Formats: sequence, structure tokens, C-alpha cells
Amino acid sequence: MPIRTPYLLFLGDAPHAKTAQGVLDWQPELCLAQSRYPSCRLDLGLPEMGFAEAAAAGARSVLIGSAPAGGRMPPAWITDMRRALEAGLDIASGLHERLNDHPDLKPLADRLGRTLWDVRRPNREFSIGAFERRSGKRLLTVGADCAVGKKYTALAIEREMRARGMDAGFRATGQTGILIAGDGIAIDAVVADFIAAAAAELSPAADANHWDVIEGQGSLFHPAYAGVTLGLVHGSQPDAMVLCADPTRPRLGAGDFDLYPQPDLGDCVRRYTEAARLTNAEARVIAVSLNTSKLDESAARTLLNETEARLGLPCVDPIRTGVGPVVDLLAQI
Amino acid sequence: MPIRTPYLLFLGDAPHAKTAQGVLDWQPELCLAQSRYPSCRLDLGLPEMGFAEAAAAGARSVLIGSAPAGGRMPPAWITDMRRALEAGLDIASGLHERLNDHPDLKPLADRLGRTLWDVRRPNREFSIGAFERRSGKRLLTVGADCAVGKKYTALAIEREMRARGMDAGFRATGQTGILIAGDGIAIDAVVADFIAAAAAELSPAADANHWDVIEGQGSLFHPAYAGVTLGLVHGSQPDAMVLCADPTRPRLGAGDFDLYPQPDLGDCVRRYTEAARLTNAEARVIAVSLNTSKLDESAARTLLNETEARLGLPCVDPIRTGVGPVVDLLAQI
Repeated sequence: MPIRTPYLLFLGDAPHAKTAQGVLDWQPELCLAQSRYPSCRLDLGLPEMGFAEAAAAGARSVLIGSAPAGGRMPPAWITDMRRALEAGLDIASGLHERLNDHPDLKPLADRLGRTLWDVRRPNREFSIGAFERRSGKRLLTVGADCAVGKKYTALAIEREMRARGMDAGFRATGQTGILIAGDGIAIDAVVADFIAAAAAELSPAADANHWDVIEGQGSLFHPAYAGVTLGLVHGSQPDAMVLCADPTRPRLGAGDFDLYPQPDLGDCVRRYTEAARLTNAEARVIAVSLNTSKLDESAARTLLNETEARLGLPCVDPIRTGVGPVVDLLAQI
Repeated sequence: MPIRTPYLLFLGDAPHAKTAQGVLDWQPELCLAQSRYPSCRLDLGLPEMGFAEAAAAGARSVLIGSAPAGGRMPPAWITDMRRALEAGLDIASGLHERLNDHPDLKPLADRLGRTLWDVRRPNREFSIGAFERRSGKRLLTVGADCAVGKKYTALAIEREMRARGMDAGFRATGQTGILIAGDGIAIDAVVADFIAAAAAELSPAADANHWDVIEGQGSLFHPAYAGVTLGLVHGSQPDAMVLCADPTRPRLGAGDFDLYPQPDLGDCVRRYTEAARLTNAEARVIAVSLNTSKLDESAARTLLNETEARLGLPCVDPIRTGVGPVVDLLAQI
């Protein structure tokens, strides 16, 4: 992984920090400290450091660990990133807005010999292939909504598969996943015509017993992002899908989208299966992964059991129950 | 429309020329001549001219009227485009590959005072909106496959609506449509995250009786392009859809995709309706538009009648029958 570590996780004044939290969850040894504005209500539980202090303590890169709505950096963040460069730190960003295109940051980084990593910038070109079935096996996590644990579930499954000696690799499709895995394709940043082609290149033909465990994106039921999701499903041609959901959320979760209801999980199973069978006639949803973090143990167990009975599929929470039952099934495919 | 006309339609050695044919069909007065390689088997029936000859005859721009597979210009085409610039012509291109990024063409055009038009390059930025229902009415053409007449059907419907005094405007989503209409968004060239947002901006809130007639792209049943299609459906929030198909084609049409069958038209109606209702609960497929150009009159009429009876929807061929029955229905919505 070429990005220099450890990281100073920059949160700014963002209301959410999926990227920072994800890297911290899966690569805690790479996370040295956090940097927040006084108004920031997030706390990752890391030591609080400024740029110079973090550099002195050994940090090598600032990781922009949160995504403002729409992906644009507020002006104050630009000022801070200048200070980070001056303090000797590289910057790694998963925002749509590219640090390397910025008229102030890029020349400053060049002058100081610092590196700006835009992990959303696809670092390769894609061509439209034949979409024939590829050898090897693929699992894709799919969502009832955005931000329901698709990346987390995929990482947990890959870890459990490896622990059992299975041949498995995590395939990252988003900025956090790429920062965790050190490679991948930010699928929502490719040109629309190449979504499925990029997904196909992300999980190339492999040994018959190898599993690619592919991080899902968006949701077929999300009015803004369903196109990305469908292209990823088609290009991934998954043998198995794990449906991820947050059943405690009555509406779609992100920002303005609470106009839209959460879809029914049975509809999700049906629609994802139907979509995936275009490129893999054997595709099926094999399990459900629920985020039950807002429930107590008893309510969570009840919900998992009820969902399992209703859908006829194993139902796990990767944090609360682990993903053992999912990997039991994968071992039989 | 800022592109200088009339056009010299450049076909090179391409096997297909959707763009050139589309502009010729709908704006014949803008098409002065064609330019082909000796090996080219296409013939648009226009006078054959070289670059200098066309410029002397009054042509103002070369229109790259065909798209090589994958979108990349062969080296010979680059040489020709240099000659076109030297002959005093601007160039308009609908390819993914951008003329303005080309290391030879861009400096040459600048030095000669010529303009390179990349009509696929989105000329605006998009932001993710709320996806609430917008005022006004929208029709979207949708496809069983690519290249089945979605643009042609939309243009024919808009022309018929205007002829009847209805308030209607064509909204272009592809390079040919943009070259015909003079405006639009090449929806497959936007960053994947913004497909639906771009589609929403393409058909903004309007008067209650205004119809946007939106050019469809791709197909929900095409393994490479379904993501673009789904995002366009969601962002367009169509009140009415017209399903376009070429029933004489047994497999998917474009290049390597003949691994894939044509979908059943009933499945198309069901799947497009289901997809569109995410953002418009009243969305429905109101008619079918078939390309029957490969059939004789009797076989075509039989097919149209059978399809109409089977699906319970009016079934037209814009060229053979006109789109009157579709516009009759629109007048009642």
C-alpha cells in the first residue's frame, strides 16, 4: 500500500465520518490520532492532535475521514489542508473533488514534495468486455439502503473465510474500502458507461475455489444511486449475495432522501436476485446482515430470529453474532 | 446551437454510424456531404467530399458521425482530423475520448483558431438533489436493448405533439440527440454517482401541461449499460414510458453481447414499471415502439397487431405507422 502511514484522521466539522471510522475499525494500527473542529460532535476516541503535533508524533498522512454532502470541501478545510502539507504530511482523500485538481493544494504539494492521494480517482482505464461468465466465485454485499454495513459485512466475511483457511480476497469499491485494502476501484467515480466494465475488472477470472468478496455500493432502492448498484451487480456476476439492512431505520437514511421509505426485505431479495441473474443464472441471496446496533440484546435477537423465519435465510449481525453462518454456506458453494 | 454548420459527416471506416444517420434523419439541411475511407461500406447518400473540398463548398464543421467500439479513435482518424483542422473546419465529436484532451489535436486547433466540440463532455456540474416529484409531465423512451429506436421514437413523438399544438420539448441524453437538439446531457459520460442527478437536472420542474420527451439510453437488460438506464429512469421520474424494441433481433445487438438473449417484452413492461415507480408512483408503460424495418409490410402489420394484443398496449413503428396512437394517449394524461 503506497500511502504513507500512520494516519492523522481529519474529521473537520463533518456530521459523519464513515471513512475514518471504517479505517479505524479494520486497520486501527494505522490510526495515530484525530483532528477535529471545536464544533465537531464526532469522537473516534483517538488522541487529539494538530498537524505539527501529529507529524512530530510520527504521522505521515492526513486522511480526510469524512465526506461532506455532495462531496465538496468547505473553504476552511482547504486552508487546513494547506497547513497539513506545510507540517510535512501527505493527504489521502476519498472525496469526489480531487485534491490534485485544486489550484492551491496541488502547486503547494509539488513545491513541498508532498503527495496528494485521490483514492476515488480511478487509476486505470476500462473497456467494455464480453461479460461472459468468469471462473472463480464471487460474493457481493447488497443493500436495502446506503450506509447499512455492506463494507463491514464483506470485510467480516473475508476475515472469517481466511480464518478457516478458505481462499478469499476483499475487493474494495469505495474510498474507505480502498484505504483499508490498499487497492480497489471507486465504482461510483467511474464514467457511467463503464460501471459494469469496471466491476468486471475488479474481480477478474480466478481459480475455481477462489472467492472474491466484493464490497457493495448504494442500493437498488435508492433514487440517487441505484444505477451504480445495478452496474456493480451486473459486472460482479455474483454467485452469492448477502443483503445488508438497518431495520431500525424507517426511511432512507442519507440526508434529503427521507422522502423515500425503506424497502421491504423480501422485495430486496427478489429484486437483487432478478437483477443479478442477468449475468449469472445461479445468483442468489444466501443470507441477511442486519445492523442491530440501536437495539438491546434481547430486541436484536428477536429481530434476527423473526427476519430469519420470515425470509427463510440465515440472518446475522456481523458485530453482534459474527458471520459464521454465512461462511458455513459459502463453504458449500 | 453554437456548433457551426453545415456539417461534413465523417464516417472513416466505421461499421456503424448512428450519430451521422440520426443527424441526417432529423436535420438533413445541416448535412452537406460525407467523407469515407475506401473500405467503408456505409453510404448515407450524400455527396462524397474531402476536407478541403467540403470547406470550399461551405461546410463549417466535421461531425465524427460514427463510434468505434469502446470509443477510442484509431490513429488514422487522428491524422484525418488534423487535416480537417488544416482545411479550416471545426470538429464535433460524440466519442468518449475527448478531442480537447488530445496532445496533437488540441494545440493544432488552438494555433489555427479552430474549435473542438466534445458533446459528450458534460458542460455543467451536478449536485444530488432531494428527488421530490417535480411539476410538469415527462415521457421517457426505454429499451429492450441498445440501438432499438429510443431516440428516434422520442423525436417522432415530440414532433407529433408539437404538430398538434401541445407544449413539448425533446431532451437529449446522447451525443446524436445533442447534435440534433443543440443541447442536452450525455448521460453515460457523467460520473456514475451523478447519473440520476444529471437526469433530474435535464428535465427540471416545468408548467403543469408541459411535456419533456426524454431520450432513453441503454437497457435494463443489457449487462454493460443497465446502470446508466436505471439512473436515467429514476432521475427522469417519467409519467409515461414508451418501450422500444427490435423484435427481429434474437440476441442483444451490440458486438460481444450476443451471449445475451433479447428480453421478453412483457418482462420489460413489468421491470421498467417497477423501476420507475420508485420515484413516480404513477409511472407506466403506455405504448410499444417496434423497429420493423427488416420486415415487409404484411409481416410488420402482423407483428404490430400481435404485440398489441399480447401486451394490451398500443404498438407503433414510428417510421411505418407514425406515433399518432401514442400522442393520443399522452393528450389524455
